[in-house]
Order: sequence, then structure tokens, then C-alpha cells
Amino acid sequence: MVELCQIVTRLLSVCLLVVCLVISVPSAEASRVRHFKWEVKHEFKSPDCYNKLVITINGKSPGPTILAQQNDTVIVELKNSLETENVAIHWHGIRQIGSPWSDGTEGITQCPILPGDTFVYKFVVDRPGTYMYHAHYGMQRTGGLYGSIRVALPDGESEPFSYDYDRSIILNDWYHKSTFEQAAGLSSIPFVWVGEPQSLLIQGKGQFDCSTPGIQASLCNATNPECSPYVLRVIPGKTYRLRIGSLTALAALSFEIEGHNMTVVEADGHYVEPFVVKNLFIYSGETYSVLIKADQDPSRNYWASSKVPFSITIPNHPKRSPPTVPPTGPLWNDVEARVNQSVKIKARQGYILPPPQTSDRVIVMLNTQNTINGHVRWSINNVSFNFPHTPYLIALKQNLKHAFNQNSLSDGNDFANYDIYSVANNTNATSSDSIYRLKFNSTVDIVLQNANTMTKNNSETHPWHLHGHDFWVMGYGTGKFNMSTDPKKYNLVNPIMKNTVAVQPYGWTALRFRADNPGVWAFHCHIESHFYMGMGLAFEEGIDKVGRLPSSIMGCGETKSLPP
Amino acid sequence: MVELCQIVTRLLSVCLLVVCLVISVPSAEASRVRHFKWEVKHEFKSPDCYNKLVITINGKSPGPTILAQQNDTVIVELKNSLETENVAIHWHGIRQIGSPWSDGTEGITQCPILPGDTFVYKFVVDRPGTYMYHAHYGMQRTGGLYGSIRVALPDGESEPFSYDYDRSIILNDWYHKSTFEQAAGLSSIPFVWVGEPQSLLIQGKGQFDCSTPGIQASLCNATNPECSPYVLRVIPGKTYRLRIGSLTALAALSFEIEGHNMTVVEADGHYVEPFVVKNLFIYSGETYSVLIKADQDPSRNYWASSKVPFSITIPNHPKRSPPTVPPTGPLWNDVEARVNQSVKIKARQGYILPPPQTSDRVIVMLNTQNTINGHVRWSINNVSFNFPHTPYLIALKQNLKHAFNQNSLSDGNDFANYDIYSVANNTNATSSDSIYRLKFNSTVDIVLQNANTMTKNNSETHPWHLHGHDFWVMGYGTGKFNMSTDPKKYNLVNPIMKNTVAVQPYGWTALRFRADNPGVWAFHCHIESHFYMGMGLAFEEGIDKVGRLPSSIMGCGETKSLPP
Repeated sequence: MVELCQIVTRLLSVCLLVVCLVISVPSAEASRVRHFKWEVKHEFKSPDCYNKLVITINGKSPGPTILAQQNDTVIVELKNSLETENVAIHWHGIRQIGSPWSDGTEGITQCPILPGDTFVYKFVVDRPGTYMYHAHYGMQRTGGLYGSIRVALPDGESEPFSYDYDRSIILNDWYHKSTFEQAAGLSSIPFVWVGEPQSLLIQGKGQFDCSTPGIQASLCNATNPECSPYVLRVIPGKTYRLRIGSLTALAALSFEIEGHNMTVVEADGHYVEPFVVKNLFIYSGETYSVLIKADQDPSRNYWASSKVPFSITIPNHPKRSPPTVPPTGPLWNDVEARVNQSVKIKARQGYILPPPQTSDRVIVMLNTQNTINGHVRWSINNVSFNFPHTPYLIALKQNLKHAFNQNSLSDGNDFANYDIYSVANNTNATSSDSIYRLKFNSTVDIVLQNANTMTKNNSETHPWHLHGHDFWVMGYGTGKFNMSTDPKKYNLVNPIMKNTVAVQPYGWTALRFRADNPGVWAFHCHIESHFYMGMGLAFEEGIDKVGRLPSSIMGCGETKSLPP
Repeated sequence: MVELCQIVTRLLSVCLLVVCLVISVPSAEASRVRHFKWEVKHEFKSPDCYNKLVITINGKSPGPTILAQQNDTVIVELKNSLETENVAIHWHGIRQIGSPWSDGTEGITQCPILPGDTFVYKFVVDRPGTYMYHAHYGMQRTGGLYGSIRVALPDGESEPFSYDYDRSIILNDWYHKSTFEQAAGLSSIPFVWVGEPQSLLIQGKGQFDCSTPGIQASLCNATNPECSPYVLRVIPGKTYRLRIGSLTALAALSFEIEGHNMTVVEADGHYVEPFVVKNLFIYSGETYSVLIKADQDPSRNYWASSKVPFSITIPNHPKRSPPTVPPTGPLWNDVEARVNQSVKIKARQGYILPPPQTSDRVIVMLNTQNTINGHVRWSINNVSFNFPHTPYLIALKQNLKHAFNQNSLSDGNDFANYDIYSVANNTNATSSDSIYRLKFNSTVDIVLQNANTMTKNNSETHPWHLHGHDFWVMGYGTGKFNMSTDPKKYNLVNPIMKNTVAVQPYGWTALRFRADNPGVWAFHCHIESHFYMGMGLAFEEGIDKVGRLPSSIMGCGETKSLPP
């Protein structure tokens, strides 16, 4: 299930770029508008040798890589050619300053794009770095609709590190059940969990074992070239920047390249004070740039692997394999190793944007599990998130007060009385589409507090992703957050800025951001099924400063009857 | 695959109504408004013992039976609780006089209903008879969204035949592949045909053989009560009116009840001059009422079966089976037997509404198969139907001229030069969303002409269904329609009126209707995959007489920017 990538270090007379040839690299002469025409549809594909329906962009999953330069305008004309299903695409890590209607979060910033319709996303990529895009509607991301965004520095500027070649790789997990089946199971009584992924994909390729009992032979073909291992050919002695993003539905991953250390230099579009790892831990929604030097014996190949290291599988393509068994990686329950990596990440000297030293508001978000009307749900401060039928951005801008529950969500003041080690009870948990309204330009602290689930001695890891902003990661801790002592340990000097951060089992993570981007922004666990089960919410800030909304985002809920 | 129903004729002290208990039978005191609240969603069900995702209404497939009396107003508040998929429901056989926006044909009379939205269908059931409802969006009908409509006479009026009990039964075929997989195959290059159904269902129940090789044991359970055979318990000596409708995706069926003759008394809501059959041939989209008398040996049970009689399968529930093997039915390639039944059907004496003796316009519709841009398609006069993104009803009423191709479709005048026995070539076939515009209150003749497909010596059967009208069935013929001689053989005396009629291989069927119902109306082959592949079109008539459109049908295509 795990070995999905080979690094070939033979001497090659030509540098073969296996990936990222879809769009030519921008040159100095290139236009500052990057225009794409995409068609989304259902096609049969075999990303891991098992044939199933996949959502493709222009026939591919992952879709085309968007290559642009800082301050370029990206225009994506998205045609929905699905039959009966709507779509929306989020540009993960792009803040959408001045274009909140292009954030692509259905129910929050737009109505879904109907079959047959073409929607135009238009936004400025205002910072260099490594970003991604993916479906943001129901659990549609699990259908295969995702890809990479790579924003280069303007001509004449250079990164604070050097490399010879630049490659984008997205890690993903893959399920043979359809998105519809997964979602129906999660909302069933009794609850049906999505289970472990059937494969892990590296840049859209994985190797499922077709001899698995119960697999219909006609649906699984180990020799299908669609699932040949992803191969990165490298030239000995050269340094490669690998831009690694994770869009797993569920799994947190450990990525490693046999025999090669990786130097972490970027995280979520921000320069990192460099540090070396053998295994890169990466959570869904995160991106990292690592540098690797092809400095090992060039007479053989090396495994690169992405894993949830519970199991070790023998490779399916032995004739092309390196002469070793793939690395096993660290034990997954070794939480400490993962926390150590997180804590190690600091903003790079010379590129530090110091955080505001104080905050105007502190919101403690207690993450709990519970049942509501017999359904298993996740809640924040006992409220499980329900999507509204009218997107918040439109409802707030047009003052449609009946479109969602106008009550404010709690700042978590009663968190002090909650025992995070006891089995969650939360009999008073409710579902709601209420939101947080933030004072424009205020500084907000969020403390994400993890707790025991409904299972004894169980707490899980949740990677939380914020739309429309980067935040400073102020601190991590184990156990229950102490309101008076823990803030004193915050890193006020050189915290890294990110858009996605993990909260560890029974732990807390504190982050700070400026509510300075007019719009409505989702904040949610990036595990697809957790968000589906209510683990998210939305922030409004500066709605009065949002410009005229394009009519193209309308058409659902109460927006049907709005004047054009 | 075939035996799905038992008629139990033991003496029972209580008449057990197995079906149709969902809604109480209307009484003299009942309101004239029949109000329903339905929720549509995806649920795992095992209609034929094989577990798959089904689209349910209020947890059921088939959905609730609508029971009403002539001139009642039916209101269905439909909540779409699918995750990412839209929906629309057509009320098959209801003419929607004065309510063309409630016909439920996505792309023609309304925008689709978005997830989370509630749409209100409101219409008058102006004639007694046997009707149905089903999804009319993409190939969504194959997902299980369908049910029965039964309209009784007003109090004090009686049918021209008598019976003791009244039962509704819908026949269907069932596929284990999802609607999405079927549609993706049909639109793939190379083309992937949907294949034979895995089961035939009687009132939502079938028996797939779980021991079929390649079937995952965990997904198929022959003892699941959801797939216990549909049983109709009868009281000896009593007469039953069975209202039999077919909503197969593909198969034409032969229905019979072992040892019992059936007297056909109604077709598509019109009284039939009674005739007796052993096998009732029924095409997708048709309904028939038959009378059966429970007059056989009451010490045993009898098979009722629905079949595409290519194969005979031993029943899966032997302990409950009648002591015989189920009847085999006529051979399916016995076209003559089927044509004989069709020709036999005449309007009942005393209930004849004579057709206009002449028509104002004759449209010959040559049904052919072809490829367009590599896709296998069906065409009418070389035009394969494409759905518009803006529903015709709105586009025409609001004069949105860019919403669809304004060119007229051909009346088929060049049909004279076409050899219906040659393999279809049609290299000049195109796809279009053009429509026919009919003069209001004019009389229109349609001649549906069948031809050879792209396969040598092959022509298929197509049941065509007209929305918004009943038509007179003027005549049938084999071979090529002769414009000068065949119309002279039309039945001008007592033709049956129907809303669905079959065209036989290499044959023609002529029908006549009055374009007297303001609106836009679909006319299409009722085989789900054929319509999906372009075998359909739309008629406009009296658009200027259509009342103010409800804003609830808007929200897609160009209707997004219309004033409320």
C-alpha cells in the first residue's frame, strides 16, 4: 500500500521532467494574467490500478498544475460537465484579498456551480510559495478533484536557498468506495465509518494489490500504465526542491526518501529556518518545500514513500524496484516525533513578520465528538457545523437575516469546566449554522483544544485549515490549555505563519491572526469526513468593505430571488 | 432473475394489503388538496438482496403512492437532501394544464433543485387513471426515485367495470452499477454499454442470485427481508384491479400471472375496449389496468412474473414458492405478438373522444443511431438532443434568445430518401438544443420511423413518451412509412389515447395530438440511456399564454441574472 515513488539517480544525459509539463514555466516575457479553461467531469480511471469513477479536470486527476508568478492574476474558467452533480473549487492557501467570492467554498462564499454552467474564478496570487486547489463541496475532494499551485518570485528576486530543479508532488489517500457511498455511510444510523484508505497516492499514482481477496479481476489491472509508480528522474549532484502537499481525506503521512535527508525550507508559503529531517510528517492541508541533493550512489534507485506506517507492503513492480525493502518510517503512535517537528518550525531569519504582541479576543475551541439525533458528529464548543442553504457571503452582504442562525457562537468561556480526558458526553450538543463575527482589523487568538472522543482513552489528531488568512502558530501543548500560564509561553519572536496546523491528541494549539481580509472565511478540520461531520465554522470580518458581489455566485437558497 | 411476485390465493379471514398503505385512501370527507412532504436522499438499500446506494423518498424506494381524486390539487414539498446532486421529479401522465412549470423536466421546465433546497410541485390531477412519478434529470431515474400515482373518480361516479380491490404495482429493472457509472460509460470513448439489468423489480423488490461468481458476500444477503418477494394476498372469488406501470431503464417486459387471465381495461389513464391476455406486454413509461379474478384452486400459490424472457431462473425462495416452475412467457423476438397487443387496444365504447379528422402539420421523425465526435448517439432527423443550460420554458417566456439554438428542427421532409434497412451512416448528424415550435391549438401528426442501427440487421424498440398531452395512436406499420397511402389506414374512429407508445424494429407509429397546452413539453424515448444519448426533443406551444413563472424554477444558466 505504501511504496509509490522511485528516485532514479542514474546519470541521464537529458533531465526528464516527468511531472509539471502541463503548463509551461512562466518566463520574463509572459503575461501577468494566467488564463485556464478547465472542464470537470466523471471518467473511469485507475490511479492505483483499481478502476473507478474519478472526477477529472481536462481528463486528468490530479488536474493541471497552476504555475504563476507573484502578483499574477489567475483566471480559471471552470465548466462543470458532471451530469447531475454541482461543484466548487477552493484555492488552498490563496488569501483572496479583494476577491472573497473566489474562495470556492460552497455554502460560504458561493452557490455551487451547476452542471452545464461555467464559473470564472479570478484571483491574484499575492505571495510566492506552494499552494494547492481542490473541490470544496460535500466530500467531493475524495473524488479526485485536486492539483498544485506554484507561485514563483517576481523576475529578478531570488529565494533564500538555492536549488537546480523544482517539482510539485501531492500526496493523497484513495478509497474504492464512491464519495456518495462514503458520505451516506457517515450520515447513516448506524454510523458507517469510511475505514482505512485502499491506497496512498503520490502525484495521483498508487499501487493497490489486485490479488486482494474479493477484488473483481476485471476492475483491477496491475500492469495498467495509469498506475505505474510515479518516477522522479534526477541528475546526480543536483539539488531538487520538492514541493510536497497533502490532500489526504483522512491520513496523516510520513514522507521519506531512502538514503536521502531532506532540508525543510518552506511551509504553507512561508520560509522556514532550515532544518533537516529523515521523515517529513505532513497533515492534510499542509505544504512543505524540502531540498534534496542527489548525492548517493548513482548506480541504483531509491524508494520514496508516503505512509501511515502501520504496515509494510512489498512493492508491486519488483523488476523496477530499488534493491532494498522500502523504509518503514517511524511508528505512527509516536506522537512525540510529530510534535517535535511542529515545534521545530520557526520563521526564517530575515523573513520574520512578527506577530501582534497582544490579541483583542481569545476564542477557545473545544473539539469534541458526540451524537445528535442519533448521528455521530464533531462539535466545537458543543456546536456541530451545518452548512446554510444560502452562502454566508451573500446573506451577510445583502442582509438576508433569515438565511442562517444569527446567534453568536461561544468564545468557549465554559471550557474551564470540561474534563478533556473523560469520554465525551455532550448531551446538549446541537447543530447550527451560526458563525463568529470578528471586529475588522482586530487581532484574534484561537486555542484549539483536543479532548477524548466517545471512545475510552481515545483522542485524535485534527489538522485545522483557515481560509483567507495565514496565522501565526503561537504555541503547542499537551493536556488542557491553561488560560493564565500557557499564553506566557507563546512564541512572540519568530513564530511560523501557516494556513493549516495540527492539534495533537489531548493537546492544544494556539494561533493568532489579524481579521483584516473583508469576507467570510471557513475554518475547519481538513479531514474530509470530520468536516462533513460538523468540525468547522465560519468567520465574518469587514463585510461592509466587500465590493459588489458577482451574480455568478448566486442561484441557490434565498439568492434565487435577488435582483441581478 | 425473473420470478418476483407471488399471488397467494389461500382463504384469508382478513384481506391483507401489502402495498399502498402509505397514504390513506381518500374519503368523501377528505380535503381536495393532497399535501405531501417528501425528503429525497441517498441510503443503502437491498431491493434485490444486493446492497447499494439508492435514492429514497422518505426512506423508501419506490416512494409513497399518491392517492387522489379527479380534480384534486396535489402539492409535493420536495426537500433535496442529497449531498452534492440536484434533483427534479416528473409526474408522468399528468398533463400539467395551467402549471407547465410543475412538469419536473430539468432543462425543459425548471432548473434542478439544489441540495438543501425545497421545491414545491403543485398541480391538478384532472383525469382519473393510473400514473407514475420519477426523477427526470440525467439518468437519475435509475437510482430508484420513482412511485405510483392513482387518481380515483369523483364521489358518486363509477368505472365502466367492476372490481373488489385496487392495487398499484410498478415494474422496473435494476442495475448494480451506479447511475454515475452508467452515464460515464455511455459518454465514454470507447462507448461502454449499460448491459443487461441485474434484476427485475416488482414494486421495488427483486431477487438477485447472491451466489453469482464475483459478488462480494458482504454486499449480498438472500435472506434480507428488504428483498423478500413481493406478495399480493388475495381473497378467493374476488376481482382485483392491478394497476401495472413500467419504469424500466431499458427492458420491455412481459407480465403474467400463472393460471390467471388478465382483462385489460385501462391504458395510460384511458378506458380500453376490454380484451383478455395471458401475457401483458408493457414498455417503459406505459401503465395498464388489468382485472384478475382469484378463481383458481385456493389451496396453492401462483407465480406472477415480469420478464425479458431470454432466460428462466429457479426461484430463490423455494419454501414459499408455488409448486410449479414459473411461466416462461413468449419469446422476446416474437415482435408480432407484441404488435398484435398494440393494435388490439382501442378506446372503449362510450368513452371515445374522436380525433380531429385532419392534421395541420405532419412531422416525420426518423430515429437513427450514429456517432458524433466519436460518441455513440441517437438522433431524430439527424439531430441528437442536447439539454440547454437554461430551461426552455424560462428562456422562451423571458425571451432569452441566446439560451438555445433558435433554428427550427426539420419536419423530416428528406426522410423519403433514407433507406431504413441500411446500416446507419449519418455522417452529417449534429447535436443541438433546437426545438419544434407548434402553432397553438393546431393538430399535429407525428410519424415515428424506426431504422437500422449502426449494427447490421439490427433495429430496436423505442417507447416514446409525450409530456403535457395525450395523443391518439393513429396507426402502426412495419417497414417504411408511405406518406400517401399509410395515412389512409389511420384509425379515425376509436383510436386509444396514450402518453407513451412503442415503435417496433423497422416499423413506424403514427400519433396525433392537439397543441392546446401552453408550455414547453418533452417528447422522448423512455429508455433512460437512449434519452441520455440524445433520443428526444421539445415542443413549444402557446408560450404567450403561460402565466407568470414561479421564481423557484430559476437559478441556473441565464436565469441567474433575471429580476425576481
